[in-house]
Amino acid sequence: MNAFDIEEFEQKIKYRFKDSDKLKLAFTHSSYANEHKKTVPENNERLEFLGDAVLDMVVSEYIYKKFPKMPEGELTKLRAGVVCEGSLAKIAREFDFGKYLLLGKGEECTGGRNRDSILADAFEAVIGAIFLDGGIEVVGSYIMSFMEKVIDDMKISFRTLDCKTHLQELIQKTSKSPIIYKIIDEKGPDHDKIFISEVYHNNITLGYGEGRSKKEAEQNAAFDALKKLEKID
Amino acid sequence: MNAFDIEEFEQKIKYRFKDSDKLKLAFTHSSYANEHKKTVPENNERLEFLGDAVLDMVVSEYIYKKFPKMPEGELTKLRAGVVCEGSLAKIAREFDFGKYLLLGKGEECTGGRNRDSILADAFEAVIGAIFLDGGIEVVGSYIMSFMEKVIDDMKISFRTLDCKTHLQELIQKTSKSPIIYKIIDEKGPDHDKIFISEVYHNNITLGYGEGRSKKEAEQNAAFDALKKLEKID
Repeated sequence: MNAFDIEEFEQKIKYRFKDSDKLKLAFTHSSYANEHKKTVPENNERLEFLGDAVLDMVVSEYIYKKFPKMPEGELTKLRAGVVCEGSLAKIAREFDFGKYLLLGKGEECTGGRNRDSILADAFEAVIGAIFLDGGIEVVGSYIMSFMEKVIDDMKISFRTLDCKTHLQELIQKTSKSPIIYKIIDEKGPDHDKIFISEVYHNNITLGYGEGRSKKEAEQNAAFDALKKLEKID
Repeated sequence: MNAFDIEEFEQKIKYRFKDSDKLKLAFTHSSYANEHKKTVPENNERLEFLGDAVLDMVVSEYIYKKFPKMPEGELTKLRAGVVCEGSLAKIAREFDFGKYLLLGKGEECTGGRNRDSILADAFEAVIGAIFLDGGIEVVGSYIMSFMEKVIDDMKISFRTLDCKTHLQELIQKTSKSPIIYKIIDEKGPDHDKIFISEVYHNNITLGYGEGRSKKEAEQNAAFDALKKLEKID
């Protein structure tokens, strides 16, 4: 990563590093460091460790405040959907991370520059680098500059908020038969009961879910069904 | 949680809440909220979600900076050891969290006031409440007021840093036979090789580990052995 690359990337993220070595390190994949042990003693894995935690916290704070009525279980699902590898790799591609990566020859030959896992890791490492260089406010602004939209899209999509409605819409595209939810079991003492639901369509079990209320169990069953149907589609 | 309790607790944590309702909420277990649905619409689970992420980030930043040479894998293990349920419950007991918990009757009868999971969850919820009320600097100071010692103790203990030494010390208490490490396999291409190690004592396999270097594989084998021996002891 040369001086020109650094400046170009800083313009994209709208932040100028005090110490740009941190940024270089964030793009240094272990395969590159392994090939240049004498001159490159470190890779981006430690920064990724830090950035992962920073990203989680910033997203958690945002969705906690943005959705004051959302139960903890749905917050957890929403966060997991937003900060998953695929989602982070997509954002990394928008910032053209692949261009800046320092990769070893083997990774280069096998398409590492466009691999989700490598892009998502570098993305988290850059978050870690910005955090160290500029502090939590600066990195928070950077994260929210794109995360707000990702979170809104995710909220609109099926993953968390109303899986039953989304499942309904999906099934109705191809069938007029109804979707049926049943509470098939309950477990635990009265004060801490867990309900278990299944969802059926044309006598086929589509999904299974547990929850502290019947409604939550059904939503989780719908969520389970959507996950399975997504894979089939 | 009455006004006296709030003041007492604030003195312990050396922080006065602007909005003490957040603190009350942090001590409100779901079982209590379930029993008082009309007057207590919320429980501490959302705050726990937030506090968990805040705690992870504060600890991550601290150990990242404190141990500049520690590889990512060891940082991850150290953090996992430090923020695990047992460790958080222990700290919660030191601050006498059990006294302040709002519990439903069922949980009260079955010893919930001293249960690790409930204490650790409330602990994370209080972290979340302080963060919302006072910001990241304030909650960071609170966390580090006890975490520094927990991290140092953990570092001294076997979990991460030198499992081979710790295993040696443990075995030597009861036996003079040597501990033997072998690299039993390697996998992956040259630039991204994974080594696989086993550790033996008196011809018995004690543990198995993988790593990017032989040393790391052996440390992980020792870590695996210690986990198993700990359960037996």
